[in-house]
Amino acid sequence: MSSSGPEPSVFRQRVRRGQFSGPTGGVCPGYAQANLVAVPREHSSDFLTFCARNPRACPVIDVTDPGDPTPSWAAPSADLRTDLPSYRVYRGGRLAEERESVESLWRPDLVSVLLGCSFTFERALAAAGVPLRHLQLGLTVPMYVTGLAARPAGPFSGPVVATMRSIPEPLVSRAVVVTSRFPRAHGAPIHIGDPASIGVGSLEAPDFGDPVPVKPGEVPVFWACGVTTQMALAQSGVDLAITHSPGHLFVTDLLDEELSGV
Amino acid sequence: MSSSGPEPSVFRQRVRRGQFSGPTGGVCPGYAQANLVAVPREHSSDFLTFCARNPRACPVIDVTDPGDPTPSWAAPSADLRTDLPSYRVYRGGRLAEERESVESLWRPDLVSVLLGCSFTFERALAAAGVPLRHLQLGLTVPMYVTGLAARPAGPFSGPVVATMRSIPEPLVSRAVVVTSRFPRAHGAPIHIGDPASIGVGSLEAPDFGDPVPVKPGEVPVFWACGVTTQMALAQSGVDLAITHSPGHLFVTDLLDEELSGV
Repeated sequence: MSSSGPEPSVFRQRVRRGQFSGPTGGVCPGYAQANLVAVPREHSSDFLTFCARNPRACPVIDVTDPGDPTPSWAAPSADLRTDLPSYRVYRGGRLAEERESVESLWRPDLVSVLLGCSFTFERALAAAGVPLRHLQLGLTVPMYVTGLAARPAGPFSGPVVATMRSIPEPLVSRAVVVTSRFPRAHGAPIHIGDPASIGVGSLEAPDFGDPVPVKPGEVPVFWACGVTTQMALAQSGVDLAITHSPGHLFVTDLLDEELSGV
Repeated sequence: MSSSGPEPSVFRQRVRRGQFSGPTGGVCPGYAQANLVAVPREHSSDFLTFCARNPRACPVIDVTDPGDPTPSWAAPSADLRTDLPSYRVYRGGRLAEERESVESLWRPDLVSVLLGCSFTFERALAAAGVPLRHLQLGLTVPMYVTGLAARPAGPFSGPVVATMRSIPEPLVSRAVVVTSRFPRAHGAPIHIGDPASIGVGSLEAPDFGDPVPVKPGEVPVFWACGVTTQMALAQSGVDLAITHSPGHLFVTDLLDEELSGV
């Protein structure tokens, strides 16, 4: 799989030069993509604690030194200030702007945390013959704010956000087994079946992403989602936080398989 | 398995009352035990970063709020100041003392980190028919300071320490599969075979623990070990750090299986 696209370093160069600013789904297949959350060092211990307490939603792949824009394990040639196609900037807990570079905003106290992403396990599901209808239809996976509370840490708290994939009933077990292999990319589902039991009302009205119908013979299956961190940031009121824009992730040098706990 | 010993909360009460001060191997079978590392909040971001960068050696299970002696997920009725049978206290990076309670030393800025431990996967190995000679002989597993460097973070750096288990050649593959299921308890081996290739000299002279001979037809298999954190603490020079004493771990309310990434 890793031979069917550009090397991650080549792709990141394109992004850095402003030659790519779209969503990253499908680029550099075989390589893991990551959520970015950069917070001031003042808050990094609490944020890392929040991640440790919510490992399904917030599986940490790598952490930078304060001010260092390079994730030395996940992508030693990268610059996190320029190598994502789109960023979100939160100020005082509010989404202040979206932009294609955060070089001019960078601070020596920013600690960047990279978190595994569902693209990794979606590729494994597809390889295992589990159909993913949102991809077939060219839609964004539907995301729901659940009634489950994330375990808070310091200023970070909020609900668990979950993605939903509608899985044919005979393949539900396979979907669990396949995704459980990737604990550093959200792992096994957090819920199978009745949305109401995790506080999700209408599947037709996702909080983020596109609605995808659950057909007869299919079961809604929910995985914890990295948007959990964005909601926690928004509620935290921290003076500055920088994240990827939804769908515009950081492409690492790590193979998807390296997020399998291997 | 969980029915063959006291409940963890009952066991911890005994420890708290001074009625148990020995090593914890074999107590509360079926329940996960954890390494403890408590550091001042000033260093907790760097220490959590060290853990994230070295997940095989330092798999984080839970983190407390600063000053809070209770790990709210791993054991909500516990008190980390009193519920371990023996503690080590580091001052300025030096092992200053060993004691049975750290209540009088506790500070409101101490962040406690609980890390998964090899007892979890050893139980799984035994259940899978993989013999563990150090247990059969009543010895402590041999530990070696390898030539591999842990990825440093802030003041924390040092070598990776590994445990060695001598596994009959026909069972090596099984040992890998079984332990890979527990990414939050050190996971799969970091090396199989020639000790020299990870910078380990004589197997007969472990740096910690007892020598256990590798018999003909057996292969030395190495897993990352939580002592890696103790070496990093010793080299860090941080003003205060509190850990468990080797072999005297914290007994959590979590089932071993809960460290399987499930």
